Amino acid sequence: MSLEILPVVGIGDVVPGDDLAALIAGAAPWLRDGDVLVVTSKIVSKAEGRLVEVPADGPEREAARAEALAAESARVVARRGPTTIVQTHHGFVMAAAGIDASNVDKTHLVLLPADPDASARRLRAAFAARRLDVAVIVSDTMGRAWRNGLTDVALGSAGIAPLRDHRGEVDPYGNELHITQMAVADELAAAGELVKGKRDQVPVAVVRGQPWGSPEAADAGAAVLIRDEASDMFSLGTAEARAAGLRAAATLPAAGTAGAALDPAVAGRAVELVRPHLADGTVVEVTDAGVRCVPPPGGGARALIRFGADVHRLRAALLAEGVATAVVDTDGDAVLLTATAV
Amino acid sequence: MSLEILPVVGIGDVVPGDDLAALIAGAAPWLRDGDVLVVTSKIVSKAEGRLVEVPADGPEREAARAEALAAESARVVARRGPTTIVQTHHGFVMAAAGIDASNVDKTHLVLLPADPDASARRLRAAFAARRLDVAVIVSDTMGRAWRNGLTDVALGSAGIAPLRDHRGEVDPYGNELHITQMAVADELAAAGELVKGKRDQVPVAVVRGQPWGSPEAADAGAAVLIRDEASDMFSLGTAEARAAGLRAAATLPAAGTAGAALDPAVAGRAVELVRPHLADGTVVEVTDAGVRCVPPPGGGARALIRFGADVHRLRAALLAEGVATAVVDTDGDAVLLTATAV
Repeated sequence: MSLEILPVVGIGDVVPGDDLAALIAGAAPWLRDGDVLVVTSKIVSKAEGRLVEVPADGPEREAARAEALAAESARVVARRGPTTIVQTHHGFVMAAAGIDASNVDKTHLVLLPADPDASARRLRAAFAARRLDVAVIVSDTMGRAWRNGLTDVALGSAGIAPLRDHRGEVDPYGNELHITQMAVADELAAAGELVKGKRDQVPVAVVRGQPWGSPEAADAGAAVLIRDEASDMFSLGTAEARAAGLRAAATLPAAGTAGAALDPAVAGRAVELVRPHLADGTVVEVTDAGVRCVPPPGGGARALIRFGADVHRLRAALLAEGVATAVVDTDGDAVLLTATAV
Repeated sequence: MSLEILPVVGIGDVVPGDDLAALIAGAAPWLRDGDVLVVTSKIVSKAEGRLVEVPADGPEREAARAEALAAESARVVARRGPTTIVQTHHGFVMAAAGIDASNVDKTHLVLLPADPDASARRLRAAFAARRLDVAVIVSDTMGRAWRNGLTDVALGSAGIAPLRDHRGEVDPYGNELHITQMAVADELAAAGELVKGKRDQVPVAVVRGQPWGSPEAADAGAAVLIRDEASDMFSLGTAEARAAGLRAAATLPAAGTAGAALDPAVAGRAVELVRPHLADGTVVEVTDAGVRCVPPPGGGARALIRFGADVHRLRAALLAEGVATAVVDTDGDAVLLTATAV
């Protein structure tokens, strides 16, 4: 199997209400059944009127931009300097919610299509009405963690399976393949970007020769490429997650039902972490019942206050190990930290 | 500009010491000057003998695997269940340091090439010795944050610029482009993957028609695609960063030089966060001097211990706002939290 990646030139400026299928078919009379169209989301948004009017400059422009960002965002993922990475209502994690001020006049911002899979399906149907059986990918440029430079990915798709599944396949040596699923739609979007410009002269690329996968898998749409927050190991920026940890320490439940056993190895790690930071005279030991903390004998109010902080340090260290604690008063002024019954 | 993506079939099994250029040139006599070869890192590693002998199964195999992972890893980025994502000594953030047990017999693991840019340069030079002027990308499959499915990216490159720079370009509307750099080498690796198999039958793809960029930019190699840890907003997994925040709370410096002003708005946010968790009778107020904390009047030892925890909660909440604090003893048993002079 070999592929051709062909640019579609001459589409020109797209305005709300434009018939994209007509524009693309007019610019690419050479389209064939089986082709995959990679369409830049920008022209889909423009045709669909996903534009926000904004002042051309000044603080009003910034305010309007911030308002659009808030409206498009489901949650903030990370912030650093002028960069805000959010998860959009669609589920995409993108800088500035994918809102773009380039390739549009200065009095408008372009939002992402409201439902890129639906946009892709509509476009595919419009080509079908012209008796052309093409698959459609709606693409956009995205940043990523760990690597410099941006790549294009698929926001929406129709007619083609976004994932290629290798689960259960066996290599020539009899090993089951570790790689489970390849994000074919993202790779096609990336391939398309190579022949497209960044200045809207070439908003569409055609990939010729790519199999579409099973019709059932094709029905899923590019939404299957969105990893849900719960199964994402990088759902928050590092600084934001670290701050969340500090806030968890600040808001540890005061009460808690004691009872669960505390793994001595885990307790030992927490104690070793905190030990260099304990107040003079505080005694901490790991016992079968939990972590026993004893204040300095005959200490005054100041010593007891510092001891209280020591106890809280230990609770934070234990939570860092995944152990929620209850504080149990024992003999004298001593305190016992036990795991809470979850 | 249009592209062709062509598979190179018939390379067969690669073993240490093989002359990759000879194998590829033999399988693809149709190669031309200007082509970009996308070569799966697996066959580069095999030719270079980057193999580790391991038992075929049992706990010894797992131990050998863990040892190889530790040797290839510079640091652990995130862990969940059986998945360990590390940063390799090269700087790549990859599950299991890119160590692979597929497409190799059961008594070996395949490591990444020691220096993929050098591998790419050597391969390009070997083709030059055969009077073929081709660029080379050494590719591998990588997971990513936020999106399901894997894509191929460039670990090494020679002869072609890995990044396409759009900085300073202006769109037809006069807007400066926001997008700064496209990761062309990663997009080429992704395009190549579309025609390659996952079972080593097709370990090389050829991209025909792709401009190489400036020779200076080409010299950089794919190492420029590695984002350094400090400028990466996702340098740690969310759970790991949250635990780091908890550990920071557990190990707050006990001492600190008071003196810096504490922004009342910031202090107010920290106090509001903690207020529902304060012990009965603890009084906290934001003053010009800092956050003043007063224990319940006439409280006994237990009350003072709980008050000490309250003070530590506030310090954690303030650090979540980016403010390191010093604890200053004041009148009676009251305590003042001030920002530390950094």
